[in-house]
Amino acid sequence: MKFNLSSIFSFSSDISSMKNELKTTISNFNKVLIEKDKSVKIEIKNFINNSLYLNISSDGFFRPHNALLQLKNVISKEFGKKHHLGIRNIKIDSYTIDFELEKKPLKDFTIPFAKLNVSGKQIKLILEDVSEDFLRRNYIDRMITLAKEKVANQYYEGKEEFWKLIWESDPKKHVWSKDPTEEMVKRGWLKQGPTKGKWFYRPQAAAILKAMEKIAIEEVLIPIGFQEIIESNIVPFDIWLKTGHLEGMPGEFYYISEPTSRDVEKWERFVDLTKITKEIDFDELKKNVSAPSAGICYAQCPVIYWSFKGTTISEKSLPILIYDKTAVSGRYESGGRHGIERVDEFHRIEPVYIGTRKQLLNLRDKFIDRYKHVFNNIFDIEWRMAWVTPWYIQQAGKLGDESTQDTGTIDFEAYMPYRGDRRSSEWLEFQNLSILGDKYISAFNIKAQKSELWSGCSGIGLERWVAAFLAQKGINPDNWPDGFKKYLKEIPKGIEFL
Amino acid sequence: MKFNLSSIFSFSSDISSMKNELKTTISNFNKVLIEKDKSVKIEIKNFINNSLYLNISSDGFFRPHNALLQLKNVISKEFGKKHHLGIRNIKIDSYTIDFELEKKPLKDFTIPFAKLNVSGKQIKLILEDVSEDFLRRNYIDRMITLAKEKVANQYYEGKEEFWKLIWESDPKKHVWSKDPTEEMVKRGWLKQGPTKGKWFYRPQAAAILKAMEKIAIEEVLIPIGFQEIIESNIVPFDIWLKTGHLEGMPGEFYYISEPTSRDVEKWERFVDLTKITKEIDFDELKKNVSAPSAGICYAQCPVIYWSFKGTTISEKSLPILIYDKTAVSGRYESGGRHGIERVDEFHRIEPVYIGTRKQLLNLRDKFIDRYKHVFNNIFDIEWRMAWVTPWYIQQAGKLGDESTQDTGTIDFEAYMPYRGDRRSSEWLEFQNLSILGDKYISAFNIKAQKSELWSGCSGIGLERWVAAFLAQKGINPDNWPDGFKKYLKEIPKGIEFL
Repeated sequence: MKFNLSSIFSFSSDISSMKNELKTTISNFNKVLIEKDKSVKIEIKNFINNSLYLNISSDGFFRPHNALLQLKNVISKEFGKKHHLGIRNIKIDSYTIDFELEKKPLKDFTIPFAKLNVSGKQIKLILEDVSEDFLRRNYIDRMITLAKEKVANQYYEGKEEFWKLIWESDPKKHVWSKDPTEEMVKRGWLKQGPTKGKWFYRPQAAAILKAMEKIAIEEVLIPIGFQEIIESNIVPFDIWLKTGHLEGMPGEFYYISEPTSRDVEKWERFVDLTKITKEIDFDELKKNVSAPSAGICYAQCPVIYWSFKGTTISEKSLPILIYDKTAVSGRYESGGRHGIERVDEFHRIEPVYIGTRKQLLNLRDKFIDRYKHVFNNIFDIEWRMAWVTPWYIQQAGKLGDESTQDTGTIDFEAYMPYRGDRRSSEWLEFQNLSILGDKYISAFNIKAQKSELWSGCSGIGLERWVAAFLAQKGINPDNWPDGFKKYLKEIPKGIEFL
Repeated sequence: MKFNLSSIFSFSSDISSMKNELKTTISNFNKVLIEKDKSVKIEIKNFINNSLYLNISSDGFFRPHNALLQLKNVISKEFGKKHHLGIRNIKIDSYTIDFELEKKPLKDFTIPFAKLNVSGKQIKLILEDVSEDFLRRNYIDRMITLAKEKVANQYYEGKEEFWKLIWESDPKKHVWSKDPTEEMVKRGWLKQGPTKGKWFYRPQAAAILKAMEKIAIEEVLIPIGFQEIIESNIVPFDIWLKTGHLEGMPGEFYYISEPTSRDVEKWERFVDLTKITKEIDFDELKKNVSAPSAGICYAQCPVIYWSFKGTTISEKSLPILIYDKTAVSGRYESGGRHGIERVDEFHRIEPVYIGTRKQLLNLRDKFIDRYKHVFNNIFDIEWRMAWVTPWYIQQAGKLGDESTQDTGTIDFEAYMPYRGDRRSSEWLEFQNLSILGDKYISAFNIKAQKSELWSGCSGIGLERWVAAFLAQKGINPDNWPDGFKKYLKEIPKGIEFL
């Protein structure tokens, strides 16, 4: 990696008489830097009136812009006292960074704040409009990382996702091969919601979903020792900045804006127009609503991690086992919606666990036991488990293999007879189980008294449980296994329409 | 009420030769109108080249703009065929409406689309920039209504709200006079949420809130025969237009916007900037997020009514008794937040009932019985019931009195020892019970096989139940009544921090 920075210091007065003194200071400063990184080289290019022309280069770890900012301090301190000389302004003439990519880019790409020259695996970032303030921010290394990541992703795109079977049940006989959502809609148990990808569960469908909730809590979470917490449904951007969700899937959020004011007078014209026209005046609305600053819960774990931010957890509280089942999740799906299994709004119980590596590996076994119990003994369905690689690991280019499977995700997939043959059709991911290492632990600066902490979660999507169960077992309780009937014997009567 | 409209019809060619014919047609048309409303008078003011100058006045129910639009059709039909003459354009020169208010305005006010001249109780609306299209929309009568309403509200402002005691418990001894929220926060049972007016319930506080949920369902809703439904948390504007919420409290919503696209390329620059700067670029975000089109659930009943929109309910399904406990409510509070009892986000069970007047009055008695049972036998708290007037009745200027109390709201209020003396301090409204007549039934066009339908709801705010109970009974389970201990014997251990 080779950095080259040309810059001009503008001083408060003419520096012609101080040339030698400046040369000495800069040369001494360079010597100090060389002790840290022998590649840093500061060259004086010219002195003209008030201006000092510098070039700083490096091909080690020490960045020229950091050298420049430190040099400014050194000169200001030394020459300020002695000669009442100050640095008025730093102008960046050019700043280029040359480095080699692991592989040749497959197509053009862009990086904000820079032009790119690419030749084979060689890349040159030519920074644009760089101010002193820009240099102070920690942008430059992130720009380099982003360039590498973009090229790595070009190679990753189109690759098959990592998927490795762990376990599968025997094939089962299924009572039907209909789409349970369609059948429930036909019977009026379920109704399309008022906006896209949402549902209104009438008493019959609600009873099934709530039975799933009860099973998850009584057969999985309570036996393992989980306690309920209640979190907010509204997630501010600062939490998603920490978890990486805002850079991961900004196109999938439902965004939330607050009113700029509750003042009735400020809203008077909007109210008057609404009363007269019975329509929304969006221009008037915009005046009274601020920019989005939050989103609807996407997954519950970020807010749970936030609740531990900066804390030190007592050793005897480990592993922490808590779950939220109150926040409702929203994901903007645009296309690809289907039935209750692929929706914009869904109901998930999210257990989160924080503990030592050993505690979490042990917990994973317990979870698998309990899930097997539910899916085999209570649902009696055809399903399988596989190692998969979740997005944040995919993005980092770290494909899962056996050696990294201390952390990672297990997907639980169910055969959906309505989709066709069990071998060729797509199975439904209806449950997952992840151990995430210290990713979120370190993002939120969570500590234990002594131990190194890891964390994980295992989202229980109730709609997915309903879809998997009904797709195989049908909607007639007579065909349901006894284990399930203990939780729901019959479908409530519901409301009759003419 | 006196309407006066001056207008010019521009024809496709010169009408000088058709003066008499036009006069006859207009005069005949006026005769037809006079049969409906004898005050409608159409006068021809002039003929110049292609233009016909008209004046239409009325002081009855028939509006001049409707006369104008009908006249356009009559002339177009008659003269189009016969003379190949069309009306190219209608220009509105002036349109004024004079009427008398019930009372003299107390201060100036405005109405969109009009200038106002007010003199005592007399008011003149002078319409501005009126197009044919404007006349076609049903705005003018709503503007008149709005003017009357605004003046009526000027008299209403500052008036005390209607409040009439129905029943009160004996005074009780209270175990403490502390603010339960503060005490729970001190003990780490509860933590301020990530955004204003939200809370994070750790296991201890969550257990209390969830006990309240269980009590409400098992002691109130199931005994009365309610069934659970599950509704969406996201309410589109068209529902709030129908219920009147959008004109009632637009400054209290959390607004929701969708991404304009999920396309990764469209979001690439936003993602790049977020990765480099670790901040939100709001300009870039705005490009990818559409205008708000919905809000977070404010109360659950609007979506429940929507689910019955346009249906005819079988007589034997009446009364309909359903509740939602899944949607989380958001209300932007700006100021006045306090503890868990006045918040921006809360958890409410909302039973909605639809049936005949008689069924609903009977149901109200059942509710009161069950609530009395809970508040006296399970909570053992000091509380009272009062008739109050909810906002939508206030707005319509219909104050509650004994004669209108078939419809109306009962508030349940609890003494909060931490607020001071029981006589002078403000009690907490911790429950309500409303019968709303046919307001929402007709807004959503809901019908029964035979009966006239009414509806109502009775929001059970779980945070309010917790606040009322703990304020009187404290947070030490030893001091809790046996009835409550049946639902929650002890506080869970929770997590220890250093």
